[in-house]
Amino acid sequence: VTASAEVRVPVVVDGARDYVVAIRSGGLDAVGAHAVDAAPAVRRWAVVCDDTVGALYGDRVRRSIEGAGRPADVFTFPAGEAHKIRGTWADVTDRLVAAGLGRDGGVVGLGGGVSGDLAGFVAATYMRGVPVMQVPTSIVAMVDSAVGGKTGVDVPSGKNLVGAFHPPVRVVVDPETVRTLPRVERAQGLAEAVKHGAIVDADYARWIGEAATDLLGGDVDAANRLVARSVEVKAEVVSRDERESGLRETLNFGHTVGHALEALSDYTLPHGSAVSIGMVLEARLGESLGWTAPGTAAALAAILESVELPTAPTGPVDVEGALGFMKADKKVRDGRPRVVFLERLGRVRVDGGSWASAVDEEALRGLLSSA
Amino acid sequence: VTASAEVRVPVVVDGARDYVVAIRSGGLDAVGAHAVDAAPAVRRWAVVCDDTVGALYGDRVRRSIEGAGRPADVFTFPAGEAHKIRGTWADVTDRLVAAGLGRDGGVVGLGGGVSGDLAGFVAATYMRGVPVMQVPTSIVAMVDSAVGGKTGVDVPSGKNLVGAFHPPVRVVVDPETVRTLPRVERAQGLAEAVKHGAIVDADYARWIGEAATDLLGGDVDAANRLVARSVEVKAEVVSRDERESGLRETLNFGHTVGHALEALSDYTLPHGSAVSIGMVLEARLGESLGWTAPGTAAALAAILESVELPTAPTGPVDVEGALGFMKADKKVRDGRPRVVFLERLGRVRVDGGSWASAVDEEALRGLLSSA
Repeated sequence: VTASAEVRVPVVVDGARDYVVAIRSGGLDAVGAHAVDAAPAVRRWAVVCDDTVGALYGDRVRRSIEGAGRPADVFTFPAGEAHKIRGTWADVTDRLVAAGLGRDGGVVGLGGGVSGDLAGFVAATYMRGVPVMQVPTSIVAMVDSAVGGKTGVDVPSGKNLVGAFHPPVRVVVDPETVRTLPRVERAQGLAEAVKHGAIVDADYARWIGEAATDLLGGDVDAANRLVARSVEVKAEVVSRDERESGLRETLNFGHTVGHALEALSDYTLPHGSAVSIGMVLEARLGESLGWTAPGTAAALAAILESVELPTAPTGPVDVEGALGFMKADKKVRDGRPRVVFLERLGRVRVDGGSWASAVDEEALRGLLSSA
Repeated sequence: VTASAEVRVPVVVDGARDYVVAIRSGGLDAVGAHAVDAAPAVRRWAVVCDDTVGALYGDRVRRSIEGAGRPADVFTFPAGEAHKIRGTWADVTDRLVAAGLGRDGGVVGLGGGVSGDLAGFVAATYMRGVPVMQVPTSIVAMVDSAVGGKTGVDVPSGKNLVGAFHPPVRVVVDPETVRTLPRVERAQGLAEAVKHGAIVDADYARWIGEAATDLLGGDVDAANRLVARSVEVKAEVVSRDERESGLRETLNFGHTVGHALEALSDYTLPHGSAVSIGMVLEARLGESLGWTAPGTAAALAAILESVELPTAPTGPVDVEGALGFMKADKKVRDGRPRVVFLERLGRVRVDGGSWASAVDEEALRGLLSSA
């Protein structure tokens, strides 16, 4: 265990309790102390994780909680986004009931984005809501999904259409867990981190490109720095706007086009790759509309390529299909897709008081046809 | 439509928007105006109700909303508590998605307690939460379940174990709908109203007994008065304590024993009947422990009998079974069931700063054996 100091980032939530994101090497062994500190009234914890993460870290987290004087049990489900569905949610819920977890229980979401979303939704709906503590172990969960309070599952007609806002009582990040991630998963997580730099901190975006070798190689110090800065950015954005009505919308940079490509691929294109391509294409669209400084798309693409992320679709895009997905998006108003544009690297364009701009179909059609 | 004035009862919610319960004869035709007033940003409404209520009032509510300038559709599900389950929730959710209801949509829960709980849970979890307006049409829903923000469904191992707190943006009560209720359903709803009197207003409890003929006969003026006073009581209790940690616990009077009898019967004993018997037995237990004024149980029983509710189990009680259910209740702490006791009719006993008292198994065993 590295003797690094703990970084604590506060997240201020409108209408709910504030919480802290605690980042430290070896943090997995401090989950119990955090549990007692953040939720002293919780008498028993259910650690919910997929079977892969359960085999790696389940016992360690359970022992940490028991060492802090609270009983804990581990509940696993099959790994993979295909299991982030209502059936798994119902199954985990029924097992917590059968195990006797009461209203004075709590849930630990241990693992990647799927575990956090699923465990958070179980907690949000268990006996009308019990506390959840998030312990993300993938880069994408550390820098993105574990912070902000979004929970949910996928339904046949779309991703994350069912869920709840249920802010965690604490987020505990142990960057050492990046060591056990496959290299390709590390790269996937870096897409959202580059996005954080792109919307508010150009130096941070550039640093990710420079530190690519360390970040992709699983270096813990680089991961520590990455997570601390990304969590600061995300915490600031969601702290000002927990309900996604305003500033939070800037986090959708790259996602309007990205989500459409992801859905078009029937989700065979991973989310990080989709967002990476989406950021470059949306930056290019912004340049062509005269809203984004020339060269921004190229600068972004260079950073993303250095962390081994794709920056263009692998083949021709089904333009009408992509437009259909964009118009079906839950963020659409009055039928025109909304896109977050950069003014330049590190700064989002404001359009009439809004952080996103409605875009005509024709402009999107042109962009996608040439992609 | 009676030209009675609208009664508006405010409900103040901790950590969420306050809302108003609007009570008026003919209120069904004002649902649209209330929708626009309470949730102006909602562009489209989904009216969720069971098929019985849908046939009676679905079109009228839909037309009211459309008359106020918002599109609305009616989504029905099969009537009955057996359908207040995750499967129905998932089915209704998928139909809203298929109909294109977006994040700027809202849900109207029209009907009895089942519809309100189910529609509320659909709204709580639809795209991480859309506004819900409750339009209760049964007495029990008007005086109890539509106010307070509890939503949820039953699971095989227990009732209401899955759900969310999701306060409505408004509750619209039209007491004229009591006319279409079967007499036995009116009686069922009166159990919770008598409870409101028992815990804070003895005169109100006695009035229910005196007005029994009108209330059971579906008289609209009597229903108006009943709903207004019960909503005042419930609103005051939940306004002070939206999260059931303190004062709200007084609403559990009659429910510790009542829930156990209900569960023992495999839910063939209706909730109102169970609570009615539970109130009398808990009052009797309080008298035997010296905590409740002598004669309280008899006074309660007389009121409940006049509204055609049972006041004693129909046969011998499975004492150990009932104790098992009480100890499995989600409100149990440290294994001892908690019971809300009356000091006298209209006043709850305070026990060491708490509104409920832990009771030894032996005392409960004695009570149930003699019941």
